[in-house]
Amino acid sequence: MANGLALRKAAREGQLSGTTTGQAPGHIQANLIVLPAVVARDFELLAARNPVPCPVLAKTKIPGDPHSFAPANLFLHSKDLSTVIDIRTDHPAYNVYENGKLLATKSDIKDEWTDSSVAFLIGCSFSFESALCKAGLTPRNIDLGRNPPMFTTSSRLNPAGIFTGATMVVSMRPYRPEDIERVREITRPYVKTHGEPVAWGWNALDELGIRDVNKPDFGPVTEFRDGEVPVFWGCGVTPQVAVMAAAEKIPGKVMSHKPGSMLVLDITEDQLFAAENTSIQPLGLVINGH
Amino acid sequence: MANGLALRKAAREGQLSGTTTGQAPGHIQANLIVLPAVVARDFELLAARNPVPCPVLAKTKIPGDPHSFAPANLFLHSKDLSTVIDIRTDHPAYNVYENGKLLATKSDIKDEWTDSSVAFLIGCSFSFESALCKAGLTPRNIDLGRNPPMFTTSSRLNPAGIFTGATMVVSMRPYRPEDIERVREITRPYVKTHGEPVAWGWNALDELGIRDVNKPDFGPVTEFRDGEVPVFWGCGVTPQVAVMAAAEKIPGKVMSHKPGSMLVLDITEDQLFAAENTSIQPLGLVINGH
Repeated sequence: MANGLALRKAAREGQLSGTTTGQAPGHIQANLIVLPAVVARDFELLAARNPVPCPVLAKTKIPGDPHSFAPANLFLHSKDLSTVIDIRTDHPAYNVYENGKLLATKSDIKDEWTDSSVAFLIGCSFSFESALCKAGLTPRNIDLGRNPPMFTTSSRLNPAGIFTGATMVVSMRPYRPEDIERVREITRPYVKTHGEPVAWGWNALDELGIRDVNKPDFGPVTEFRDGEVPVFWGCGVTPQVAVMAAAEKIPGKVMSHKPGSMLVLDITEDQLFAAENTSIQPLGLVINGH
Repeated sequence: MANGLALRKAAREGQLSGTTTGQAPGHIQANLIVLPAVVARDFELLAARNPVPCPVLAKTKIPGDPHSFAPANLFLHSKDLSTVIDIRTDHPAYNVYENGKLLATKSDIKDEWTDSSVAFLIGCSFSFESALCKAGLTPRNIDLGRNPPMFTTSSRLNPAGIFTGATMVVSMRPYRPEDIERVREITRPYVKTHGEPVAWGWNALDELGIRDVNKPDFGPVTEFRDGEVPVFWGCGVTPQVAVMAAAEKIPGKVMSHKPGSMLVLDITEDQLFAAENTSIQPLGLVINGH
C-alpha cells in the first residue's frame, strides 16, 4: 500500500494488524504514547528538555479528543482531520499498560481511551536509515533485516516533573571511522527523528557507560566488520523507559503502539526534511496575544 | 531606568557601560553570542539539541543584519524594529575573541561585525531567581549579592556539527531538602531560562561528576546553612564554553556580551512566562509551503 491514508484505513478496519516496516516507503512513521492529562504536561516538558532521544512530532490538542493534533501540518491529506485520523484505531496494534505492567495487546484502544487521554506521536529512526541507504551507507541492521541493538546508558535525561532519574537509550550501528563524518552529515538534518549521532568510536562505550557492545538491553546483537566502530544515536525507546520508570506516579492506563505497528503519516520524508526548506525553531513558547 | 528601550538607548549612546543586574526589574535580559554564518547553523543545532543549558531566545534573521530577529515577538516595543535594536551597540559592553582568546572589551562591536555575522540571544537565570525571591525562597547568591557558583560537569552535550565533546555547565544554589519540590515547581515554567533543576541532593555531585562543591569552576563559593543540599540548574555559560572549545574550527572573530552587561528586552517576565498563556512547542521545523 502506497500511502498513509490507505494504511491507517486498513488498520482502522482490522485489515492490517502487523508491522508497518517497509510499508508506504518515503512516508513518515510515528511511535505513540498515550497518557492521562494530569501527567501529560510533565511528559511534554520531558520531551522538550530532551529532544534528541524524545522528538515529539505532534500531540493531541484537547484531552479526550483522538482526532485533532498540533501541529496540524503533519497531516496533509485532508482538510477535515476528523474524518482521517483516529488515534484509537489507526495504529495496526497497541500495547496497554498499568503500573508499568503490560495488560494487553489490542487492535484498538477505544475501550481504554478516556476523557483525559492525551496522545503523543514520536519520531522514529526509519527516516534517517533510508537516507543512509540512499547514500550507500546502509545500516548493518537493515542489511541483516533486524532491529538495531539498543543500550541503556548512564547519560542522564534532564528531569521534568514526575519524570526524574531516567537515562538515555541509544541505538547502535557500526561504521568505518573514515565514514563517520559523512554519516553525521547525512543524519544531521533529521532533527525530528534523532538527528546526528550522540557518540561514536570505542571510547563512546565509556562515555555512555555501556559495558559490553555485544550485550544490548533491547534488540539483537549486530555484526562488526573489518575496522568498524560503534556509532550511537538517541533512541525512541527512551521516552517509553522514562514513562515506565514513573509508572507508580501515573494514575490509570498508559497506551503505546505495539513495537513495529506504527502510525503512517501522510507527510513524506522529503517534505519533512528537505534541508533547504527547514529552519530550526528554538524550544518555543507561544505568547498569548502576540 | 524602567524599561528595555531606555536601557538599550543608554547603552547605544555610551551612557551605560556597566552591569544591567537589577535594572528594569521584571524585564527579560539576554546573553549574546555572535558567530560567523559558516558555523551558525551548527550552533543553532547545538542549542536545539541541548535546550536546557542553551536556551536560544532569538537569533538574527539574515547574516550581517544587526536589526531583525526571529521570533520578532520578543521585541514588543516598536513596530519598526530597525529603529529599536542594533545588536552591535545595545549591550553596555562586549567581549571580542579570536581563536578562543580574549582580544578586547569594547562598548560596541561595529568594527568587528561583518557581512557574515549572526547573533544569538540566550536566556539567563535572572528570571527564575526573581520568581524564587517572590516565593520566599531567595537564592543564597542573591542574599549574598554574588553570582552563584558554577561547575563544569561530566554530563555530555548532544554534539552538533563542529561542536563535539562539550559538557554541561551548571549553576548551584543551596536549599533545604523539604523545599526542593517547591523550588522545582516554581522554576519549571521558565523553560526559556533553564527551567527546573537538572539535579539535586548530595548524590548529584557524583551524578554530575563534580568533585568538590566548594571549588566552583566559575563564580564564587557559596554558603550552606543547616541541612541544606546543593540544587543544580543548567547554566548559560555552557554555550560559551562549547564555542571556546571549538575555537580552532571557527574562522574569524567571536563576540559576546561582557558578563553582566546584558541586552535588556522589552518583553517582561510575566509576558514571557505567564504559565496559563504558554504552550510548549516541540523542537520544530517550518515546513515550506505549509
